[in-house]
Amino acid sequence: MLYLIGLGLNNEKDITVNGLEVVQRAERVYLEAYTAILMVGKDKLEAFYGRDVIIADRELVESSSGQILLDADTKDIAFLVVGDPLGATTHTDLLLRARNLSIPTRTIHNASIMTAIASTGLQLYSFGQTLSMVFFTPEWRPSSWYDRLIENAALGLHTLVLLDIKVKEMDLHALARRVGKYGKPRFMTVAECARQMIEIEEEREEGVCGPDTLVVGVARLGTETQKIVSGTLAELAEVDMGEPLHSLVVVGKKCHELEKDYVREFAVSRENWDRAWDNRGYGGL
Amino acid sequence: MLYLIGLGLNNEKDITVNGLEVVQRAERVYLEAYTAILMVGKDKLEAFYGRDVIIADRELVESSSGQILLDADTKDIAFLVVGDPLGATTHTDLLLRARNLSIPTRTIHNASIMTAIASTGLQLYSFGQTLSMVFFTPEWRPSSWYDRLIENAALGLHTLVLLDIKVKEMDLHALARRVGKYGKPRFMTVAECARQMIEIEEEREEGVCGPDTLVVGVARLGTETQKIVSGTLAELAEVDMGEPLHSLVVVGKKCHELEKDYVREFAVSRENWDRAWDNRGYGGL
Repeated sequence: MLYLIGLGLNNEKDITVNGLEVVQRAERVYLEAYTAILMVGKDKLEAFYGRDVIIADRELVESSSGQILLDADTKDIAFLVVGDPLGATTHTDLLLRARNLSIPTRTIHNASIMTAIASTGLQLYSFGQTLSMVFFTPEWRPSSWYDRLIENAALGLHTLVLLDIKVKEMDLHALARRVGKYGKPRFMTVAECARQMIEIEEEREEGVCGPDTLVVGVARLGTETQKIVSGTLAELAEVDMGEPLHSLVVVGKKCHELEKDYVREFAVSRENWDRAWDNRGYGGL
Repeated sequence: MLYLIGLGLNNEKDITVNGLEVVQRAERVYLEAYTAILMVGKDKLEAFYGRDVIIADRELVESSSGQILLDADTKDIAFLVVGDPLGATTHTDLLLRARNLSIPTRTIHNASIMTAIASTGLQLYSFGQTLSMVFFTPEWRPSSWYDRLIENAALGLHTLVLLDIKVKEMDLHALARRVGKYGKPRFMTVAECARQMIEIEEEREEGVCGPDTLVVGVARLGTETQKIVSGTLAELAEVDMGEPLHSLVVVGKKCHELEKDYVREFAVSRENWDRAWDNRGYGGL
């Protein structure tokens, strides 16, 4: 059996008891380590589980999944994923490959940023499509997310924006020379995301993510050091949220009074918050 | 400290290790028992935790939350919620009351139907607003969900529909007589939901949930007996998904080929699935 096991958002103890029992009896234990990070290192996980953990990078999962699935028809293999195994990053490709090999699978779910974002006080019912923001480069500034944001905004919905993570990625120059040289891990900050959004707004001018758009930045959600800051996009472009992981929510115009009261408590400046709220017609849709 | 602790979707062992440690040391342990159910009873939880568990019904939480918050400024109180504490049911009202009393709070997140629904093979990124479907009565057939469904459908997005649960609710007659007589718990089935949707479609005729609309029914997601069935709404109106809890997804027209391949495996009839897919123009938006 291939078990996809969610690790949740925080530390080694955010695994469920069911998940832990599988890890402790599994033949091999893999940790997917290229789309998200825990707040603790592999050594902490190994000490707590009492098991060796094999790091599964993108190459292993996407090109050599046969290694992971080896003997999974008769033995239990644990594949650990930060958050929920089918949340922000879908591992349905691995499940499909297992299905084609007639290997039974089971998913042990866990917390995901996609529900924990409700800690902002914004209701999950009022979120539209989730977006991804990648690091812009001088050559590449993808903005298809902007069209999705227009769609959500037109319905007055909130928008969760997941921020880029570059772990063990080769840069263009290394790729061109076909050498396996990896850059340092990079995690997009709320401030970087806010600046990129304002940049695209200046070009497209649809009014969905200008400097006075209300947003909420979150960092290390679900951990003891979790930080939530709300304000205008211009304010968040200057905020220091500290260590990764960060995410951002664009507040929808249909925002309910109860949501407003809750999220306003996190404002950089309540005066600015109230001014943007009134001027841009929030709560009115 | 008031701890809101998610219990996940399945049994007593779906609590996280962090959550379990809080439960075992807390002064009092409450279980929110009116918006969702676990697959196991309170006795199983108590045996596994080694603690007494106090059932918190709607009256206690909404009208007598002072009891729950008593001494929470100096002692640890655990408030257990099936799924994620801030997922489908938001307990931000309880958090707000704690905040007003200067009681510190912490949320220990867990799996929620709102991410576990990705087990269908449909990508969370492509979901629009989540809807709720309540039991129709001869006097009351709310259909505001239909307008939200139109909005999601226009964008080609999937729609998660959460189904009504009636636990310890008084019926209209009992309410009128002001007697505390509760009906038996009722859990809406996928088939009941499908029939109600077809009924409203017949009146509104916008073509978003007719008999040939493609949907996916799920039951007991995240448990060993999890069941996923895909098909037309007419087919799902006849399907028996077994024990609760059930949920339903209306497939969006922008459905990707990879999603289609995955979800089609669960079809009542692949022939009917393919016919509806082609006739109604899925994958084309």
